[in-house]
Amino acid sequence: MKKSQVSLRDKDILDMESMTIHEMELILETAKEMKNIIDRDIKKLPTLRGKSIINLFFEPSTRTRTSFELAGKYLGADVVNITVGASSVVKGESLRDTLLTVEAMGVDVIVMRHEAEGSAHFAAKVVKPIIINAGDGAHAHPTQGLLDIFTIREKKGRIKDLKVAIIGDILHSRVARSNIAGLLKLGAEVHVAGPATLMPREIAKLGVTVHTRVEDALKNADVVNVLRIQRERQQKGLFPTAREYARIFGINASRLSLAKPDALLMHPGPMNRGLEIAPDVAYGDQSVIQQQVKNGLAIRMALLFLVLTGGKNLETSA
Amino acid sequence: MKKSQVSLRDKDILDMESMTIHEMELILETAKEMKNIIDRDIKKLPTLRGKSIINLFFEPSTRTRTSFELAGKYLGADVVNITVGASSVVKGESLRDTLLTVEAMGVDVIVMRHEAEGSAHFAAKVVKPIIINAGDGAHAHPTQGLLDIFTIREKKGRIKDLKVAIIGDILHSRVARSNIAGLLKLGAEVHVAGPATLMPREIAKLGVTVHTRVEDALKNADVVNVLRIQRERQQKGLFPTAREYARIFGINASRLSLAKPDALLMHPGPMNRGLEIAPDVAYGDQSVIQQQVKNGLAIRMALLFLVLTGGKNLETSA
Amino acid sequence: MKKSQVSLRDKDILDMESMTIHEMELILETAKEMKNIIDRDIKKLPTLRGKSIINLFFEPSTRTRTSFELAGKYLGADVVNITVGASSVVKGESLRDTLLTVEAMGVDVIVMRHEAEGSAHFAAKVVKPIIINAGDGAHAHPTQGLLDIFTIREKKGRIKDLKVAIIGDILHSRVARSNIAGLLKLGAEVHVAGPATLMPREIAKLGVTVHTRVEDALKNADVVNVLRIQRERQQKGLFPTAREYARIFGINASRLSLAKPDALLMHPGPMNRGLEIAPDVAYGDQSVIQQQVKNGLAIRMALLFLVLTGGKNLETSA
Repeated sequence: MKKSQVSLRDKDILDMESMTIHEMELILETAKEMKNIIDRDIKKLPTLRGKSIINLFFEPSTRTRTSFELAGKYLGADVVNITVGASSVVKGESLRDTLLTVEAMGVDVIVMRHEAEGSAHFAAKVVKPIIINAGDGAHAHPTQGLLDIFTIREKKGRIKDLKVAIIGDILHSRVARSNIAGLLKLGAEVHVAGPATLMPREIAKLGVTVHTRVEDALKNADVVNVLRIQRERQQKGLFPTAREYARIFGINASRLSLAKPDALLMHPGPMNRGLEIAPDVAYGDQSVIQQQVKNGLAIRMALLFLVLTGGKNLETSA
Repeated sequence: MKKSQVSLRDKDILDMESMTIHEMELILETAKEMKNIIDRDIKKLPTLRGKSIINLFFEPSTRTRTSFELAGKYLGADVVNITVGASSVVKGESLRDTLLTVEAMGVDVIVMRHEAEGSAHFAAKVVKPIIINAGDGAHAHPTQGLLDIFTIREKKGRIKDLKVAIIGDILHSRVARSNIAGLLKLGAEVHVAGPATLMPREIAKLGVTVHTRVEDALKNADVVNVLRIQRERQQKGLFPTAREYARIFGINASRLSLAKPDALLMHPGPMNRGLEIAPDVAYGDQSVIQQQVKNGLAIRMALLFLVLTGGKNLETSA
Repeated sequence: MKKSQVSLRDKDILDMESMTIHEMELILETAKEMKNIIDRDIKKLPTLRGKSIINLFFEPSTRTRTSFELAGKYLGADVVNITVGASSVVKGESLRDTLLTVEAMGVDVIVMRHEAEGSAHFAAKVVKPIIINAGDGAHAHPTQGLLDIFTIREKKGRIKDLKVAIIGDILHSRVARSNIAGLLKLGAEVHVAGPATLMPREIAKLGVTVHTRVEDALKNADVVNVLRIQRERQQKGLFPTAREYARIFGINASRLSLAKPDALLMHPGPMNRGLEIAPDVAYGDQSVIQQQVKNGLAIRMALLFLVLTGGKNLETSA
């Protein structure tokens, strides 16, 4: 199949596992164009005029929701937010019914975040609008996976044969899962490290190397991706205390020096500074954390553009 | 008066009781045009460009708020949401002052939901912008009434002489009130049934037939409109338990079979599945629940268009 | 320096203290033009098309957030709201990181409200987008100061030598501080009165006259600006009870009669009617409270226009 024949038109974006390499390449290339547009400070294109996007968020979010909202608006679409707190979800409506309601309003894309694993797949089966998974429980967060890969490739020129270390709470992390799936597909060597209580049992089967000592994962790494410790998810008692975590697994300057000198330091945000990451490295020379946010906008613009138009001329209206 | 002379320009939409038959006809006809526009997937018209709409919601809502927001945006207006949780209402400002503030910002339409009966009428007296009542306590929800009537007429070709059964918590339901007022005006025969504790005393005076057994209301009905049981409103003790309610009043396949074979099944949403309505009928062949949502969008587009322009050419800007 | 040489292009708007008289004049003059535009009912200009504004609110607000949102939209900008309740701030992210994230998304202006004094200055140092302070703790609320001055000058023709009485909780009031700084700079004579427990110690050094009896402050005043009593801020015990406050400091018709007969009555809203202000004067002939809201919109349109374009032609796009 020629790459030019790949199209994401009308496709749901649910996880990295179901995405082909050609599709990933198309998204990454398109995101590069989008980044050029942002860099030229162009923030209103007629491309998606007349398209409507719903941000349907069952969990709080600043960066992902805002990123999708701006991405849609920069491309000329209408974006409407539905968040749990102010919604009829409090009245006990089922997810299925909420989705059917949103569908009936004629929207084109539903960007959805929900605490249940598999909810995005469920949504894609239940309704016709294009579903973009903005995080479903600990399962997947494909736009984060894509923006991380975009960032690595932008800085390193490739993904293949890079050693990527992912550090932290692998068990609860949809970011980890989407990174692992995408990176392995593109030929990276993925290492993970974190507390045994936060390491999923089936992890080794995925093709990653599991370490119990964080130092072993960091050694000679090209990329260090530090996960957020999701305090709100841990069960009491099982987890090392925050102080223990910082001491044993926290990424600081001394630990980062085990990686290659030009290793990238990444974090999906929001950071618990002083817990999983020390401030000096978070804002240090190797950190690409802010670039990740910017690239996230480019990735989301690319995805909205591709699923809604199939990749037509950017400067004309849909 | 000729129908072509009817105009809703600058009129408040407060309840069905104060609406003439000619006005209702005009709204229903205009909504048909709006539905054609949605069906042709046109979701950006310049019609209301330069008009501003405030969604002023003192109670949570997904469908009504989103429906008005999309309706306004599809027609080119600016829409700004104010919801209680994130607003200065928490600081104890009076409704009057909030309304005066919104008025002073030069908005054209205030779509308002408030828990107090009569609040929309109050608003219409206090401020100049056009008020559209999106629900005031148990009093009125005229856009719901209109969309239900639109849906019935679309499917049955008329309202006159149809037997419409409204089932459930009539006492707390603004949906019931707006349906009853509109349907009677257009010549339907309205039957209601529900627990005696949830039946308003003055109900029979309205011209509806009251039943204590739900089966009697359903018999030979052309339309079965099932109300939401508003668990959050009932006082403890008075109400039958949820289990009792489902057993005695819940609409399931066997009860629905008492109505005409082609009877429509309606529900304003959000549904408590398994309580007032069984899943098999909610998603069954007779259900028009999702069409109600779509028609709600068309009704709201029609209303915004009519009150803001008087019904001028759709494709040009206001 | 000639006034025509003054430019606010790319300038942060942090407080009145750091604003020159020429800058204030430019804003006030531009706001007058903006008010003309609103009065002509023009509410969609292409001026700021392609510009993006984030309302980053860490405290609830109706009027300020809505005012900025409408101001931006009337001028054609995209406006995105981030409020605390629905944001990742709940996840414990630092203000600095939230700001860096918003910056990375390519926004042009961050309108920020935050409970910490100095947070707007901090933001201006940390990130490149233009910061407009929409209230930082008890420190500053410059757009309120500007809209109050605009309102006074519109009604009185000048600021110089007017006697302005500011009444209430001076200690916790960013409104008071921004009014005092701006009014003194433009030559007004400022008098303050309020409970001793709510009067900052350093207040006299600012150049205002401090009264313990409200009647002395009101005598012959040209303007009476009544502050909101922020019940949510007072420490228990210290504060006079609400009843005592209303009796000793509340502005009612009899107290207002001590001011000049044509004195303006102002309040930044939201009002506690019957506490710091009596309803008869709040809605009386001397009240300009609703005009303040309208002028606030004009001031915010002027500021967004000036900082984003430097004051270019209003009717063309940026």
